[in-house]
Amino acid sequence: KMLGRVLCTVLFVGALPPPAAASQGHISVVLLGATGDLAKKYLWQGLFQLYMDQVSSGHSFTFHGAALAALEPGQRLMFDVLKKLSCPPDEAPNRCAVLKDQFLKLSQYHQLKAAENYTALNREIETLLRQEGLREAGRIFYFSVPPFAYTEIAGHINSSCRPRAPAWLRVVLEKPFGHDLHSAQQLAAQLAGFFREEEMYRVDHYLGKQAVAHILPFRDQNRQFLDPIWNRHHVERVEVVLKETVDAKGRTSFYEQYGVIRDVLQNHLTEALMFLIMELPANVSSAQEVVQHKLQAFQSLWGLQRSSAVLGQYQAYDSQVQEELQEARGYVSTTPTFAGVLIHSHSPRWEGVPFLLTSGKALDERVGYARVLFKNRAYCPQSGTLRDAGHSQCKPKQIIFYFGHGALNTPAVLVSRNLFQPVMPKDSWKEAGARSDLHVFGQPLSDFYMYSPVKERDAYSVLISNIYHGRKDFFITTENLLASWAFWTPLLDSTSRQPPRLYPGGVENQQLLDFEMVAGGVAFTLAEPAELLNPGGQVPSDFRAIQSKFRQSPLVSAWAEELIAQLASDMEEAAVRSVARSGQFHLALSGGSSPVGLFQRLARHHYGFPWQHSHVWLVDERCVPLTDGESNFLGLHRHLLQHVRVPYFNIHPMPVHLNRRLCVEEDGGAELYAKDIAALVANASFDLVLLGVGTDGHTASLFPRSEHGLDGAATVVLTESPVKPHQRMSLSLPLINRARQVFVLVLGKGKHDITTLLSRVGHEPRKWPISGVSPSSGQLVWYVDYEALLG
Amino acid sequence: KMLGRVLCTVLFVGALPPPAAASQGHISVVLLGATGDLAKKYLWQGLFQLYMDQVSSGHSFTFHGAALAALEPGQRLMFDVLKKLSCPPDEAPNRCAVLKDQFLKLSQYHQLKAAENYTALNREIETLLRQEGLREAGRIFYFSVPPFAYTEIAGHINSSCRPRAPAWLRVVLEKPFGHDLHSAQQLAAQLAGFFREEEMYRVDHYLGKQAVAHILPFRDQNRQFLDPIWNRHHVERVEVVLKETVDAKGRTSFYEQYGVIRDVLQNHLTEALMFLIMELPANVSSAQEVVQHKLQAFQSLWGLQRSSAVLGQYQAYDSQVQEELQEARGYVSTTPTFAGVLIHSHSPRWEGVPFLLTSGKALDERVGYARVLFKNRAYCPQSGTLRDAGHSQCKPKQIIFYFGHGALNTPAVLVSRNLFQPVMPKDSWKEAGARSDLHVFGQPLSDFYMYSPVKERDAYSVLISNIYHGRKDFFITTENLLASWAFWTPLLDSTSRQPPRLYPGGVENQQLLDFEMVAGGVAFTLAEPAELLNPGGQVPSDFRAIQSKFRQSPLVSAWAEELIAQLASDMEEAAVRSVARSGQFHLALSGGSSPVGLFQRLARHHYGFPWQHSHVWLVDERCVPLTDGESNFLGLHRHLLQHVRVPYFNIHPMPVHLNRRLCVEEDGGAELYAKDIAALVANASFDLVLLGVGTDGHTASLFPRSEHGLDGAATVVLTESPVKPHQRMSLSLPLINRARQVFVLVLGKGKHDITTLLSRVGHEPRKWPISGVSPSSGQLVWYVDYEALLG
Repeated sequence: KMLGRVLCTVLFVGALPPPAAASQGHISVVLLGATGDLAKKYLWQGLFQLYMDQVSSGHSFTFHGAALAALEPGQRLMFDVLKKLSCPPDEAPNRCAVLKDQFLKLSQYHQLKAAENYTALNREIETLLRQEGLREAGRIFYFSVPPFAYTEIAGHINSSCRPRAPAWLRVVLEKPFGHDLHSAQQLAAQLAGFFREEEMYRVDHYLGKQAVAHILPFRDQNRQFLDPIWNRHHVERVEVVLKETVDAKGRTSFYEQYGVIRDVLQNHLTEALMFLIMELPANVSSAQEVVQHKLQAFQSLWGLQRSSAVLGQYQAYDSQVQEELQEARGYVSTTPTFAGVLIHSHSPRWEGVPFLLTSGKALDERVGYARVLFKNRAYCPQSGTLRDAGHSQCKPKQIIFYFGHGALNTPAVLVSRNLFQPVMPKDSWKEAGARSDLHVFGQPLSDFYMYSPVKERDAYSVLISNIYHGRKDFFITTENLLASWAFWTPLLDSTSRQPPRLYPGGVENQQLLDFEMVAGGVAFTLAEPAELLNPGGQVPSDFRAIQSKFRQSPLVSAWAEELIAQLASDMEEAAVRSVARSGQFHLALSGGSSPVGLFQRLARHHYGFPWQHSHVWLVDERCVPLTDGESNFLGLHRHLLQHVRVPYFNIHPMPVHLNRRLCVEEDGGAELYAKDIAALVANASFDLVLLGVGTDGHTASLFPRSEHGLDGAATVVLTESPVKPHQRMSLSLPLINRARQVFVLVLGKGKHDITTLLSRVGHEPRKWPISGVSPSSGQLVWYVDYEALLG
Repeated sequence: KMLGRVLCTVLFVGALPPPAAASQGHISVVLLGATGDLAKKYLWQGLFQLYMDQVSSGHSFTFHGAALAALEPGQRLMFDVLKKLSCPPDEAPNRCAVLKDQFLKLSQYHQLKAAENYTALNREIETLLRQEGLREAGRIFYFSVPPFAYTEIAGHINSSCRPRAPAWLRVVLEKPFGHDLHSAQQLAAQLAGFFREEEMYRVDHYLGKQAVAHILPFRDQNRQFLDPIWNRHHVERVEVVLKETVDAKGRTSFYEQYGVIRDVLQNHLTEALMFLIMELPANVSSAQEVVQHKLQAFQSLWGLQRSSAVLGQYQAYDSQVQEELQEARGYVSTTPTFAGVLIHSHSPRWEGVPFLLTSGKALDERVGYARVLFKNRAYCPQSGTLRDAGHSQCKPKQIIFYFGHGALNTPAVLVSRNLFQPVMPKDSWKEAGARSDLHVFGQPLSDFYMYSPVKERDAYSVLISNIYHGRKDFFITTENLLASWAFWTPLLDSTSRQPPRLYPGGVENQQLLDFEMVAGGVAFTLAEPAELLNPGGQVPSDFRAIQSKFRQSPLVSAWAEELIAQLASDMEEAAVRSVARSGQFHLALSGGSSPVGLFQRLARHHYGFPWQHSHVWLVDERCVPLTDGESNFLGLHRHLLQHVRVPYFNIHPMPVHLNRRLCVEEDGGAELYAKDIAALVANASFDLVLLGVGTDGHTASLFPRSEHGLDGAATVVLTESPVKPHQRMSLSLPLINRARQVFVLVLGKGKHDITTLLSRVGHEPRKWPISGVSPSSGQLVWYVDYEALLG
């Protein structure tokens, strides 16, 4: 009956185009959490905007606010919000007033608490449709509720509120979507029990920000200019930054659980970065192509480590937490409110280009941007003071997607005039007038082509419109979400106990948060003020390697990441020493999962490693083709060899695949490898052998009670593994024991039992082959992480 | 008799320390060209300085000026110069006046024209030694004469003027030392007939400039700071620059023969660059270590190509040449007076770092410097306007060796304060006061630690002192000289006919000489003014590839460099197409010298080549180990594979070395390669085969009248070469003819005869195997350079 009235009103006003007889069908929008902060601030306004934009689209609408509160107080609260809805400046005041009146009439409040409330809502919608003779187009359920309520509500909607086919269901979900990979997977699995992927619209409101949403279209429309320069040869760095002046006051109950990385980096800044670095899809409006390319971009990122980030916390945060969460006076939070993160890609396009993501609260200004800085590839012989600078190629070159606020106080796209004049869609972006008084990133605004939106639109309006249009490319798919969590979770885990640097907040921060790229990671430029006060005193570090003895040999122990860093440094030192002594370095490496982190570290941090003069041998190999996923060599190649420059001739995979067949005795692969070693390695004494240990005490592919390789004259042997693939090739214990140095790497809780056992037993290679490792004249060093050592 | 008098005078003055009884022996200095420009301007002053410095060293001296003029006029001219010798400001005027008087008395003029003049000079020296009872320490002959006179004078000195052992002979030579590699080799060979290497002191007066001479000591004394940052990860670029305001007026007879590259880049700027980029010797004062490291640095440079340089000529040059050299009005010189050159190294330290050498006459200012610019590795969250910049890591970071002139008007070493405070030797360099009014490279001088010499010394004084001390590290050895010419000659050859860009001169040049790095080379940023005036009209290029037919197949022809560029582009295009079609690209490459330039071009210019998805096969191989200098694979590896990222598994050297023996039939290497091809290449049809042609018409290792490979079923065969090494492995003609594309590359005059012959003959593979190349369903394209095509 309400709708009937509204349609009459519209017809009566006459000035408005008549609705196209609702031929497109009816849409019911249900806003869950209708009286909450987000709804008050953005969502109702966005829905009103949707109504204004689509009133003549042929769809009819009803809007259903819902919350836990009972009908009467809820209704009052909600209509208080609705009455305050504002008319956009580009809308005729008359038309807007009429439409606002209609919008209020089309809106109702519902208490949605128990199952029967949902059934009742469903019944009301269906009654209305029947009474008005309307075909149903679809239903939108907008979840603006805390995430713990998601699954219950989702269950109710699924069981009671689904529209009849062919009408569609769209559920809109607001972050947080979990707080790490595991919880995000759980939540995703639960939601998948209720909704199909195409029914879910996960909001990252940055995708609705005009400058972010324009990144892909910009790249697409400017392919001719960008194609030659959008790569590591031209791009110096990419920065994605969100600086806030506010702090977390009043929100610490949320913030204390999340912190800046989960709040901003994992979602907003990562999404903006992905738009910049993903390979450009042929069709940038295809949600499917975009997400595929985005997932590939995630795949191309190096994993994050503790050293990938610097973390800070503004000084007042602890006392705010104490007050708001009723924590004790001495409570110390390690939740970061500032983070700077260095991300690298190993794609051919971006290899070596630093991507810097930065965000913080209580900083000096409010501003957000994504900035691509190009290398200066020019030389300008005329000295600066004597030249008419104009479009000089020696000036900095950059493209900036300016999210808003800051000096410009508007979303904008800026392109240095010495780069190119971009193609911009004239209907949505206009060239901004010269405001030469303003500077951005140290340059006068006149150095840029600058464009701002013809009509500035709030992100939520944009997103609500996209939900209505079913534009899924503006939302986060489950795969996308999980890829992002998979990327960020290792950093969150490894920094969870790390005390952030304290900063005073505001302009007082000065250079305290400046950070630098060092050795593949980042570090604050200035030492901690505390250290400045006490420069002589050594601050004991959690992470310092313990040096002691294990089985009568030197033991290095630390948390895994520090241990691997130490091992990699020791390996480089051994290599440099060996090359200085003999001109070459013969290194035999083990396969498996333990050394992967080591390989990555060697590839990324050890540019001084003399790879040109190193020979790489395998300690053992599975009898599979080298390109098989099980091959030790494949792992070694993927994580190390393809990133460094070892000459082809110095790479020695085990010949497990001779004459195109696997480890056949008569092909003599083991003997061939032995001959190669004898021919190239002086005295068949490797400069360094890296070993691991199995839970059964095996090392290399020498298993307990092996018939071959534990003793005897053979240097390379075929062995049998108790697990698949059974056939193996391995260096023998006697050969290993000829090495100048043997490093044994033991990582993880799973190795605690064997580590404990080994600390007690003697030389019993038949029971535990690793116990037979005892270089006759070389040195043995154990690298055991705290988890393996201490359990 | 003259000397006796002088010794008396010295004793008489008394204020001076007495000479240590000449116990160190007597030194005769002979300045050839004693009345020339260089002698007037620098050399006599340098010799006087030497005398002032060494008068109490225990050596006694006589100075002999020599020229072609007869005694009387020569003597007068020379003493006019000597009378004008000035006293350095740090010398007590009294002492200086006395010493100048002595110096004049110790100096004599000689006419040195014919052989007997040299014999007479030698007799005079010996008489003096005998009369004064002096032991001879050595003789210095300083050649300040045109190079065409070198060999004659050298012959006379060698035959008539050698001192008796153990006294030493040092001959000092001034550039030019040839005008290209060939002439430099000739001159070096001639001089080697007269002098031993250790007797020759080749002057590059830049090595005497204090800021240049301090580069290696600076690197040595600041190892702790520089070690971590002196590499491609931290250095953004290196610039070595000499800008002059003067033009070549009055010197065109010299300049027209040499031009800016021979005049300045090949010697001065290259030497400064070498000091910056060579690996640092353990002992930087060891001439031998320095030259060894310098030669290695030359080895690590990529060869220069036409595209490595931009060349300019100031507009007035042509008319100056016409006037001074009495050339016709219409005479057009292509001699460059401005050059910007991009140099790259493939050493692990510098790979990818651009080294820019620039010099020109008639520019806006006079200044010289070598500048190492570091990457900005920092992110500074506080916005620029709100920060106390101080030592901010976000400011540019650089180290500058300032040769002199320019804004500072003194030699200097500058280090950005946000880098480190350098260690400088206090006795020779002093910290300069803050002159905040001055800016260098866009930064206030207060951003730098700046050091200038305690005592500013003219380069020639420094060098003459070093000749006296036998410090050969300040001079250019023959090896060093030839390495530099070997490096520069290809560029000189390839640009000799290239018209330079004209520039007005002085500040009018504006941005006309700005240049940029593009596609591995450099190009002027602005289009030629002529082209600006006539943007529509295509200017016909000398270098455009001719497209026509050869043996019924498409022919691409151009000068070698352009031809190779075209071929490389076509190969990339084929690769991209193939990967798009099938996910991979199977490329079979020939060995030998012709494709080396191609390999280098692919490695350096084709970053978009899909190497990750390419398989590289060999067309043929010599039966030698893969690491042998004769191996085709070694050449391919050195020039291409070690610079790109082809996965290990996709690299397919021919198995000529199975079971550690070479091409033994029963090892079945050819069959194994055939099997690999069958297993990996669909239909055994390569996507692209690159062939060459021998002067006998052979291709791959298929020689005329070969028993194997010209027909039959075998796809990979062992063959016999008429030249060593005789044994070869080769793809067969039938296999080659299965390829989708076959490109044949033919380069150089030496191939003109066979090219002509092939243009006439039909299909006769037994006589000329290349004539049997005729893909059954694929495409054949000939790439023949003008020299091969036209002779």
